[in-house]
Amino acid sequence: MLSQSFERSKHVYRNDEFVELIKDAVRFFNGTPVHRFTLNEKFLGAGVYALYYTGKHEPYNDYSKLNRLSYDYPIYIGKAVPKGWRQSRVSDGESKQSSELYSRIREHARNIEKVDGIDISDFSCRFVIFEADGSDMIGAIEAALIKLNKPLWNSVVDGFGNHTPGKGRFNQAKSDWDVLHRGREWADKCNGIPSNKADILEKVSKHLAMFGGEI
Amino acid sequence: MLSQSFERSKHVYRNDEFVELIKDAVRFFNGTPVHRFTLNEKFLGAGVYALYYTGKHEPYNDYSKLNRLSYDYPIYIGKAVPKGWRQSRVSDGESKQSSELYSRIREHARNIEKVDGIDISDFSCRFVIFEADGSDMIGAIEAALIKLNKPLWNSVVDGFGNHTPGKGRFNQAKSDWDVLHRGREWADKCNGIPSNKADILEKVSKHLAMFGGEI
Repeated sequence: MLSQSFERSKHVYRNDEFVELIKDAVRFFNGTPVHRFTLNEKFLGAGVYALYYTGKHEPYNDYSKLNRLSYDYPIYIGKAVPKGWRQSRVSDGESKQSSELYSRIREHARNIEKVDGIDISDFSCRFVIFEADGSDMIGAIEAALIKLNKPLWNSVVDGFGNHTPGKGRFNQAKSDWDVLHRGREWADKCNGIPSNKADILEKVSKHLAMFGGEI
Repeated sequence: MLSQSFERSKHVYRNDEFVELIKDAVRFFNGTPVHRFTLNEKFLGAGVYALYYTGKHEPYNDYSKLNRLSYDYPIYIGKAVPKGWRQSRVSDGESKQSSELYSRIREHARNIEKVDGIDISDFSCRFVIFEADGSDMIGAIEAALIKLNKPLWNSVVDGFGNHTPGKGRFNQAKSDWDVLHRGREWADKCNGIPSNKADILEKVSKHLAMFGGEI
């Protein structure tokens, strides 16, 4: 029953429909309504979201120009998977839906309200809910959107999506995001050596210049 | 430009093709050759794998009956994503393929060789490589295979896939897997209170009985 010889080609899965499916979901995502970041209404479901910055404050003011006609340049993209997906690997079921996506977006809003240098009123958001078996697509769609859009806070400035480190894990360094935006209590308890602020700002400037031809 | 009212239905993405695509990949997976766990040949690529137990030792001897006609009951399913996927969110490209999948399977083999109660010769494996844009499917296929097969080491006995905890993170408890299979040096350094071995064995027995009707 065991195979004695190894032929790599027998183990490679190819299906072009996957690429088409991702494109379709990305098109749908880009067509959904954009909302104020402080969502008024609680809703059920898991999914993928994008945050847009349209303020005029340094170092992010380029985004106000990039997004002036439509919301095309997210500053951050993230996902909220169904509760228990990582552990028991269940798909999202309507009967036990909870509000993961709403809660995640709210958590981000609270973090932005806490810190220096950015104002919650300069942010807005877009999100798509994936239900039932479709919730298994969440990771792939998030990855595709990040690759397409290269959002600043997913690429050169990391740490926005971090949670409080677990007990005894404060020997890591404060993230680049926390260096730019002071105010999360736990960030100041991290004992590692953080990046230099000037170096981070230079990376931000270079990254935004990459979108420059399109401004 | 901002939407003033919220209609949940405008944010829900539905595409039945996704379910069909996952089914197709699962069928392909189940049709691939099964190899000895100690792979002889190194190969490039990222993907999803299953480990099968066919030995006759307690508490896993039921698996030898379950798998006697064909490899239908994996004891563990896992994935290896392209290097840098988590950080820079790149898809796998042939130019920079490395041997993530091979290395992950080898790492598992080394862990099994290290510990008590199981013998590497009682294991075999099956694996599928996903290339280029297809590598974004890896998480969804792994999740689908786990939900379908409910492998013991993914569900009731956790910890097999764990790595050495980072510096200063030894205040967690030894995993259930490490309680059953002593031998990983770092597991004995974990200071938390582990589960009781008898309790774990009872969970194993109940879980395997669930497959019982099919033996």
